Amino acid sequence: MGLIVQKFGGTSVRDRDCLFRVARIVADTRNAGNDVVVVVSAQGDTTDDLLVKAAEITTDPSHREMDMLLATGEQISIALLAMALQEIGVPSVSLTGWQAGFATDRTYMSARIKRLNTERLESELARNRVVVVAGFQGLNKSEDITTLGRGGSDTSAVALAAALHADRCQLFTDVEGVYTADPRKIPKATKLKEITFDEMLELASLGAQVLNNRSVELAKKYGVELEVISSLNPVPGTIVKEETKVEGMLIKGVAKDENVAVISILEVPDVPGMSFKVFSLLAQKKINVDIILQSSGRDGKKDLIFTVPKTEAENAKRILEDNKTRFNGGEVLINKNCAKVSIVGAGMQSHSGVASTMFEALFGQNINIHMISTSEIKISVIIDAVDADKAVAAIHDAFIQ
Amino acid sequence: MGLIVQKFGGTSVRDRDCLFRVARIVADTRNAGNDVVVVVSAQGDTTDDLLVKAAEITTDPSHREMDMLLATGEQISIALLAMALQEIGVPSVSLTGWQAGFATDRTYMSARIKRLNTERLESELARNRVVVVAGFQGLNKSEDITTLGRGGSDTSAVALAAALHADRCQLFTDVEGVYTADPRKIPKATKLKEITFDEMLELASLGAQVLNNRSVELAKKYGVELEVISSLNPVPGTIVKEETKVEGMLIKGVAKDENVAVISILEVPDVPGMSFKVFSLLAQKKINVDIILQSSGRDGKKDLIFTVPKTEAENAKRILEDNKTRFNGGEVLINKNCAKVSIVGAGMQSHSGVASTMFEALFGQNINIHMISTSEIKISVIIDAVDADKAVAAIHDAFIQ
Repeated sequence: MGLIVQKFGGTSVRDRDCLFRVARIVADTRNAGNDVVVVVSAQGDTTDDLLVKAAEITTDPSHREMDMLLATGEQISIALLAMALQEIGVPSVSLTGWQAGFATDRTYMSARIKRLNTERLESELARNRVVVVAGFQGLNKSEDITTLGRGGSDTSAVALAAALHADRCQLFTDVEGVYTADPRKIPKATKLKEITFDEMLELASLGAQVLNNRSVELAKKYGVELEVISSLNPVPGTIVKEETKVEGMLIKGVAKDENVAVISILEVPDVPGMSFKVFSLLAQKKINVDIILQSSGRDGKKDLIFTVPKTEAENAKRILEDNKTRFNGGEVLINKNCAKVSIVGAGMQSHSGVASTMFEALFGQNINIHMISTSEIKISVIIDAVDADKAVAAIHDAFIQ
Repeated sequence: MGLIVQKFGGTSVRDRDCLFRVARIVADTRNAGNDVVVVVSAQGDTTDDLLVKAAEITTDPSHREMDMLLATGEQISIALLAMALQEIGVPSVSLTGWQAGFATDRTYMSARIKRLNTERLESELARNRVVVVAGFQGLNKSEDITTLGRGGSDTSAVALAAALHADRCQLFTDVEGVYTADPRKIPKATKLKEITFDEMLELASLGAQVLNNRSVELAKKYGVELEVISSLNPVPGTIVKEETKVEGMLIKGVAKDENVAVISILEVPDVPGMSFKVFSLLAQKKINVDIILQSSGRDGKKDLIFTVPKTEAENAKRILEDNKTRFNGGEVLINKNCAKVSIVGAGMQSHSGVASTMFEALFGQNINIHMISTSEIKISVIIDAVDADKAVAAIHDAFIQ
C-alpha cells in the first residue's frame, strides 16, 4: 500500500495497443493496493509532426508559441490514456501540466520547475482516481504554457514523486533496466539490480542514454527512489537510490561516448591565468569542456589539451583562433576521431587495482590511450574512435562475468 | 480606427498557405488602423483525426476527456497562426480558451459561456498585439477544459466581440456572404448586402448552412454587428444586424432543408390533451418537432401530422408505437421522401400576395404541397424531396431577378 508515480515515454503510448498495455500496467499497480499517478509524454511522432508544422511557417519561431504548440502533444496522450483506463474499469482523470500545478520559470522551451502545487492532484487521489498527468509542461507566472525541454517528462515524474512523497517513481522505457554496458553491443552485459544516484549520473553523462541527468539529480536531491523498468516486459528493473547494498560487483557499468573531440592548444605561455583565459572564453559560449590535461611547462611554454563535445569542436576551434592574442597561443589542433570509454562504480578509488585492470584490458587489445581522467566513482580514457567498441568489450570482460 | 474580431474556420487555416492567407487578411485589417482579435478553429481534419483516436479506444468516451482531447486542435491552430503573423511582422500572441477568459458551465462537449474575463485580452491589446484566441473552448468552475459544441468558434467570436464592445465581428467562411439561395444550385442567386438577425436565424434553421444559430442569437442579444465574408476573396460580404435599410427586395432568401420527415398518427381521439401527450413524449427524447398540422375531428377522431428531422424519424416512430396506449392512437406512418422549402423576409406578412406568388410558382411546376407553415418572416412548404431543387429555382425566379 503506497503511492507510485509511473512515467511512460512517447514510444510506450504511441498507439491504441500501447495505450492499453500501459493501462493494464497501471491497473495492476493499483490492484496491488497502490495509489497511482501516471506521467506521459506525447505519442510517438506527435512532437516531430508539430515541429514540422512550425518549420513550414518559420525558421525562427517564438519560443512561447512553440511551447503553446508542443504542449498539445502530451494533452492528447493524457486524454487518450484516461479513456483507456476508464475503458478497462479504472477510475481516472487527466490533468495538463498547469492543472497538475507545475509552476515554472519564464524560460520557454527549457523551463525549470519552481513549485508544484499538488492541491488538485491530491483531491483527485482522495477521490480514488488514477491521475494521468501531462509531462514536460508547466505554467509560468504570466499564466503562459512552458515546456521543460529534453527529458522533461522524466523530470515531471520525479518532481511529482518528490512533492507527493511517493514511495517510488517508476520510469518505463524500452530497456529492462540499467545494464553494465549497452546490451545490443555487449551480449554479456547484465542488468543491475541497484545503482546509486552518483553512479547513474556518471553513466548517464557518459553516454548510457537510459535516464536524463536532470531527473536523476532531482531524484538525488529529494531522495526519490527511481526504478528503470520496461513497459514491454514489466519485471523488476533497476532501482536507483542513495545507497546500494554491496554486491559482488564493484564496477557498475562500462560506457562509451562518441560525441567527443580533443582540442590541443600548443605552446601557450606557462604563466598563471592561462587556463582561466582559455576556458572562460569557451564557457561564455556555453561550450562544455570535459577532461583537461596540461603538459608540464618547458622553455616557458606548455600545451593545453582538453575534450569538448564533437558537435561543438569546430565552433570551439574558431573561438580560440579568433582570440589567440589573448593567450599568445600557438597552433590549435582538433581531433574528432576519438571516443571516451569509462567505467563507473562507487568506491573504486579505495580499491587498488581497478585502474590497472582497465589499462591491462586495453593493452591486451593493443589500444592506445590518449588521455586519462579519474574521479571518486569513475575512470575515463580517451582512445581512437575505431577502438571504442573493442575497448568496451575487453573492459567488460575484465570486470564483469 | 476600431476593434475588429475576425473568426476563421478550420478550412481557412488548414495548412501553411491558408495560415499565411489568413495572416495577411489580419495584417491588412490592422494596417487599416484597427485592433484585431482573431478567433480560429482547429485545422482542417484535426478534429476528425482526434475523434478517430478516441474511437479506437472506446465507443463511450468520458465527455470530460473528449474535451481535453479536442481542445488541442485549436491550440495547435492558434500557435501556428501567431507564428505566421510574427513571420510577416505582425506582433501577436496566442491565447487558449481559458487564457482568454472563457468561463463556461459544466456541460462537457456542449458547454455554454457563462462569463468572459477579458483582463488578459485587453492587456495584450494594450501592448499593441494581435491576439489569436482558440475558439470552441473554455474552462469550467472545476478548472477543467470544456468545449462549446458545434459552431462553437462562431459563438466564441461573437462573445468576444460583445465583451470587448468590438465594432464588428467578421466571420470568414468559404462563401462570399449570404445568398438569396444556394449559389451552387441557383446560378441567379445574388449576395445580400444586409440581412436582419431574425431573417438570418430563419435562413440558418432552414438549412442555409452559413452561420450557426447560437452565434446569431448571441449577436442579436448583444447587438454585435456580424459580417459573413470569404477568406479566399475578402471583398465586403453580408452584414447581419438588427435593422436593415429597406432594399427593393422583400424576400431575403429561398432555402431548402432535406433533413425532414413527415410523421402521421392516424385516428387519435379528438379530446383535449392529445397533442400534449404526443409531443411531450418526443420532447423527453429530445426530438425536435417542427411543423405541426392537425386535421379537424371527425367521428371523435383526428389525425396528427408533423415533421421531425429525417435522422430522428425512425426513433420517433418507435417511441410513438411503444406508447400507443397513452394516446389510443392508430397507425403511425412515416414519410422520409420529403423536403422543406422556405422563403424568408422581414415584414412579408404585411405584404399581401407573397404566399400566393410562392404557391403559384410551385403550381407552375406542377409541384404538390403537403404541408404549409407561416410565421412573421417566413413561409415554409413541405413537398416531395424530388421536387425540392425545382421548387427552389421556381420560387427564386418568381421573387428575385
